[in-house]
Amino acid sequence: MALFEARDPDFEARVRADFARQGLMTTLGAELVDVSPGEVTISMPFRADLTQQHGYLHAGAITAIVDSACGYAALSLMPAGVEVLTVEYKVNFLAPASGSRFIARGRVTKPGRTLTVCTGDVFVPDSDGRERHIATMLTTMMALAPRMAD
Amino acid sequence: MALFEARDPDFEARVRADFARQGLMTTLGAELVDVSPGEVTISMPFRADLTQQHGYLHAGAITAIVDSACGYAALSLMPAGVEVLTVEYKVNFLAPASGSRFIARGRVTKPGRTLTVCTGDVFVPDSDGRERHIATMLTTMMALAPRMAD
Amino acid sequence: MALFEARDPDFEARVRADFARQGLMTTLGAELVDVSPGEVTISMPFRADLTQQHGYLHAGAITAIVDSACGYAALSLMPAGVEVLTVEYKVNFLAPASGSRFIARGRVTKPGRTLTVCTGDVFVPDSDGRERHIATMLTTMMALAPRMAD
Amino acid sequence: MALFEARDPDFEARVRADFARQGLMTTLGAELVDVSPGEVTISMPFRADLTQQHGYLHAGAITAIVDSACGYAALSLMPAGVEVLTVEYKVNFLAPASGSRFIARGRVTKPGRTLTVCTGDVFVPDSDGRERHIATMLTTMMALAPRMAD
Repeated sequence: MALFEARDPDFEARVRADFARQGLMTTLGAELVDVSPGEVTISMPFRADLTQQHGYLHAGAITAIVDSACGYAALSLMPAGVEVLTVEYKVNFLAPASGSRFIARGRVTKPGRTLTVCTGDVFVPDSDGRERHIATMLTTMMALAPRMAD
Repeated sequence: MALFEARDPDFEARVRADFARQGLMTTLGAELVDVSPGEVTISMPFRADLTQQHGYLHAGAITAIVDSACGYAALSLMPAGVEVLTVEYKVNFLAPASGSRFIARGRVTKPGRTLTVCTGDVFVPDSDGRERHIATMLTTMMALAPRMAD
Repeated sequence: MALFEARDPDFEARVRADFARQGLMTTLGAELVDVSPGEVTISMPFRADLTQQHGYLHAGAITAIVDSACGYAALSLMPAGVEVLTVEYKVNFLAPASGSRFIARGRVTKPGRTLTVCTGDVFVPDSDGRERHIATMLTTMMALAPRMAD
Repeated sequence: MALFEARDPDFEARVRADFARQGLMTTLGAELVDVSPGEVTISMPFRADLTQQHGYLHAGAITAIVDSACGYAALSLMPAGVEVLTVEYKVNFLAPASGSRFIARGRVTKPGRTLTVCTGDVFVPDSDGRERHIATMLTTMMALAPRMAD
């Protein structure tokens, strides 16, 4: 059940095309798993060249995928032609980023004409089918119409 | 003039060794430029494979270097044997991350036995010698003694 | 259904006694509505002397009740004798704080021995029985044992 | 030396009139000490009815004055007729809020047509003339023109 209705019927194609232009997502090996109105899921496998000093995934890599998930969750509700920009985010790291795969889910908390507030979470699927919650994000995204640049 | 005094005389070697173990820093092409007590500078060149959809550096890449700069600023003041962990951070993006090089500076705002609060900033050196301020971070770092893991 | 189990069977009495010592909660007219393991609800009526310049409730008053709700949600899971301290918080304001009553709910996202991460939300009950979501908080709380002060 | 130039020559009168309409500032006993382009200082005396459970000033009261200081720092740079709104903030608490007086300083980090990013700090003047740094804020403010409400 979708919590929101997309104003642009082509929202998924638009999000997927935009994601494909993010060089960093390719570099990180991240994939767009699911695009629903107001909710986007990105998946990324563990790689040793994305780690911090203890061998866990670096906070910056975790942040990159959950930022993109939140940004595209916001974009999925925006009218055609509008672009999305990250204004700011806050991330809490809840547990060591160990595991073989990382799932980032971004959801719109409050859509708006100019600003959209999103919540994102990063999970590690464990071998027993449960998900370990390793990070949570609260973020403000901005709609950028061609003439609205600031 | 240093604002803080390091308790570990080998703080710089310790920070440099730790930085060298961060796989992501190598992947991003980031370099540790300067390590002072309570202040660390990291530099990273622009690369097309680290971008977001508009061709600017992705927020995640900017965050990665300023998180590391803040974490090592905190670590530089911690006693030998203690490790540092990012508890949380907030980043505001102030201007498009365009440019050929990105300089992240992390500074300790308030050191503490368990928690250290840091401020970080990311600048782009312009051709006229000035620096454009593109992001600012406020973050909480945690000292992790061998038996203190939570 | 409680998501967490309290380690101190007297958690509710402890939270209520602590709340009663917060001078600001009395000054704001805030009441402790519900205390469950890992979740606390505080209610506050609108008052013209708590407003900002447009006649809405001031962000500081909203923050005060949701900070207390989160802090007590964290405290409800801590062992007897331990105290709670707000390390930091981030709040997003989602809609004008108009209405006659404000309900702040704090919930533990991730409990920890030293640090506990909580999420808080502030709602305004509308006349039709629905709740308008006006603010959301992401916060880090710290357990403070008598000898652990930092 | 002012870092910014005000576009509205009456910025100080406008800020002072707006501050006078904030019911909460009067309730807290807060005073507008200084208004410069892009920088505002607010002072508030300690009062036992604004405390948390340990007798220190409640985080909500500290946040209220530094939020107002940042909001008015942002407003001081906005054109006449525009109003300011707090989008979000993050606050780190650095030391116990003890003392007889609290000084909140808000400064514009990056002004913008729609969004302005500010930094705020709260200090306690000690008897020896030094200031103890007890809190720091990073916040996003929004300019609200009559027809721009979102």
